[in-house]
Amino acid sequence: MLIKEISILQAGQLLKGRDILIEGNRIARIGRDLKDEGHEETIDGRGKLAIPGLVNSHTHLATALFRGYADDMLLQHWLEEKIWPLEARLTPEDVYWGAKLGCLELIRFGTTCYNDMYFFPDETARATKEMGLRAFLAAGIFDIRPELLAEAEPFIRRWQGDELICPAVGPHAAYTCSEETLLQARDLADRYNTLIHIHVAETKEEVDGFNLTKGLSPVEYLDSLNMLSPRLVAVHCVWLTLEDAHLLAARGANVVDCTVSNLKLCSGIAPLNCLLEAGVNVCLGTDGSCSNNNSNLFGEMKVTAIVQKNAYQTPAAFSAEQVWHMATEGAYKAFGLQMGMREGALADLALIDLRKPWLYPQSNMVSHLVYSMTGEVDTTIVNGKVLMRNGFIPGEAEILEEAQKRFLRLTS
Amino acid sequence: MLIKEISILQAGQLLKGRDILIEGNRIARIGRDLKDEGHEETIDGRGKLAIPGLVNSHTHLATALFRGYADDMLLQHWLEEKIWPLEARLTPEDVYWGAKLGCLELIRFGTTCYNDMYFFPDETARATKEMGLRAFLAAGIFDIRPELLAEAEPFIRRWQGDELICPAVGPHAAYTCSEETLLQARDLADRYNTLIHIHVAETKEEVDGFNLTKGLSPVEYLDSLNMLSPRLVAVHCVWLTLEDAHLLAARGANVVDCTVSNLKLCSGIAPLNCLLEAGVNVCLGTDGSCSNNNSNLFGEMKVTAIVQKNAYQTPAAFSAEQVWHMATEGAYKAFGLQMGMREGALADLALIDLRKPWLYPQSNMVSHLVYSMTGEVDTTIVNGKVLMRNGFIPGEAEILEEAQKRFLRLTS
Repeated sequence: MLIKEISILQAGQLLKGRDILIEGNRIARIGRDLKDEGHEETIDGRGKLAIPGLVNSHTHLATALFRGYADDMLLQHWLEEKIWPLEARLTPEDVYWGAKLGCLELIRFGTTCYNDMYFFPDETARATKEMGLRAFLAAGIFDIRPELLAEAEPFIRRWQGDELICPAVGPHAAYTCSEETLLQARDLADRYNTLIHIHVAETKEEVDGFNLTKGLSPVEYLDSLNMLSPRLVAVHCVWLTLEDAHLLAARGANVVDCTVSNLKLCSGIAPLNCLLEAGVNVCLGTDGSCSNNNSNLFGEMKVTAIVQKNAYQTPAAFSAEQVWHMATEGAYKAFGLQMGMREGALADLALIDLRKPWLYPQSNMVSHLVYSMTGEVDTTIVNGKVLMRNGFIPGEAEILEEAQKRFLRLTS
Repeated sequence: MLIKEISILQAGQLLKGRDILIEGNRIARIGRDLKDEGHEETIDGRGKLAIPGLVNSHTHLATALFRGYADDMLLQHWLEEKIWPLEARLTPEDVYWGAKLGCLELIRFGTTCYNDMYFFPDETARATKEMGLRAFLAAGIFDIRPELLAEAEPFIRRWQGDELICPAVGPHAAYTCSEETLLQARDLADRYNTLIHIHVAETKEEVDGFNLTKGLSPVEYLDSLNMLSPRLVAVHCVWLTLEDAHLLAARGANVVDCTVSNLKLCSGIAPLNCLLEAGVNVCLGTDGSCSNNNSNLFGEMKVTAIVQKNAYQTPAAFSAEQVWHMATEGAYKAFGLQMGMREGALADLALIDLRKPWLYPQSNMVSHLVYSMTGEVDTTIVNGKVLMRNGFIPGEAEILEEAQKRFLRLTS
């Protein structure tokens, strides 16, 4: 595939009129006037910007099916009266269609890879492969449903080695899993060399509980179980001490910030400047559609940067470049993805139509991507395949219709 | 004009298959199976939602020209090194093209009316009329440029009575205008029965200054000058006492919240729940493109609601309905606009393509509009005229090109 005369970003500068040659699932060449002979597919890149795909580092994708079903409620009412009863009725097929609905969003928002934790991960894997996206998937493991831990290993064995789906281990949190469960999850991840995806220090109540019962913070507790490592993806980390931040940095653990979800559920604001200063690798996630309510990382980047500025009381506290890094390079590092706008990288790209008023004047393009983009991209390419071209995704109408039917059945 | 088989919202419920008949600049009828004989124009509304246009209650629209030019800087550096030198070079023609660029955004974001304060308001008026939008316009009045006050009255006389442009008086703030200037501005507004558009209590420094020098809050000071009334549009109101809130309510003054701008500039978070509880009419604005960086009220609604929830530490604190009201009915009241989805109202409408994954399942549509919409609408109608149809705005490419040229000249 050859993308002709497109703009790219290099060190923050907009370079126009470049060609991108894709061979197989990789970017083979980036240059000027590349020949398009013999290539099956050519994309006219004029008036567009190519960016390496964004990575949504924390989702419960199939909850797209519950979007708007329950907002503006107290957390316990929300869970007990709305979300848990709905999840109790959820079938594998519901998760399959919910994940497909979520994949449509990711494709339209220029996200080429996501890191998910949810029930029936085989269904999410099947949906994701059919949609052509890349994903790291784990079932959430809770002690109240012991079969979930038992199912984790067979799930890993079924999917390990897949080109697009990478299985992970997902102990839900240190307050919903016993020490024994956490140790088993860690051993499983060690044995299969997978990531561990876990919620950490999301609310003040959670942290207070650990301090009271164990005399440790959740981060210190996980460290006492030897769970902090470069293979750990610790989500939220809203309530941390400076010592926690340095511990995460020393162990090379990755943190995922979900500012929108944390604000909507009143969990608080994560100390991102402290984490970055301590040297922690920080990524960005939208969380599920019940607490966001979409999977738009562009919106997430903007909210993250401006909320951090206000929290640290200086506009210089958090730059567009820093938050852009979280959604791209930070995530590429956490998930071991060979991505970027360079030869040899995976051909996971989003093409953005630059002829939008909010992207003018064409000056500081990183600023526009973070502070001004609505989120809707024009074309999305994953693993060398076009998933959306000029806003068209094959089969979209059928997915929307089926999602609607399943929502009505679940809530009837 | 007849819009056929469209969905509308009534008391939060989605009603499908309605027809909307527009005669002149008004909604003449809303019903089923209205006849389309003899109407010049028919719009196929299937798969779309019609909403009454949003109102952006505080902008400096022409600063769209400066978008991305200076971000992530300390306020004083930002103003002194970047914004003021640029504004010193600004010509009337620059403002005309900057306003046109901003109008493109408003049209694409479903905003049909805006309330603006900026230099050369005649140019903004000319641009707005050509683009077909509705606007309340005022020159910002500062004591350091006394001619601005002198120009206010002739500006009002030129535009009063215009169908789309409504002139207003815009003393910039109580700390940039002397008491004498404020009183003259008030008298002018009284004489011509216009709105007064003013920044109030935006930063803590401003409020501290008033308390130290006058022993009054900015709100109390304005009240001592008899400036609080239903014709006052007080922007920001971040740093208020409970007494200020009750004073604003008692006088019937309107407040405009600009959460995104306040976060990006680290001004703080306005006490919206207190204002609403006190009974103040609160509207929503994006502020200028230097501090936002776009004019997308959908994004603004989401950030406003979630930031208020977290500030008040309960997800129930601020509902989607409340913030939707601020961008619609609250503003219609403040600006005296006969708008809404009802017969006899102004035909100022936005049509939204509902076949987007983030608007599925089609359940709680107000939630989707606030928490999930990207902001891009399909069709925009103002005063009975179609300004954008299916994403197409005549003349858009020329405006983008000219804005780019002017930005390059200004910054060269």
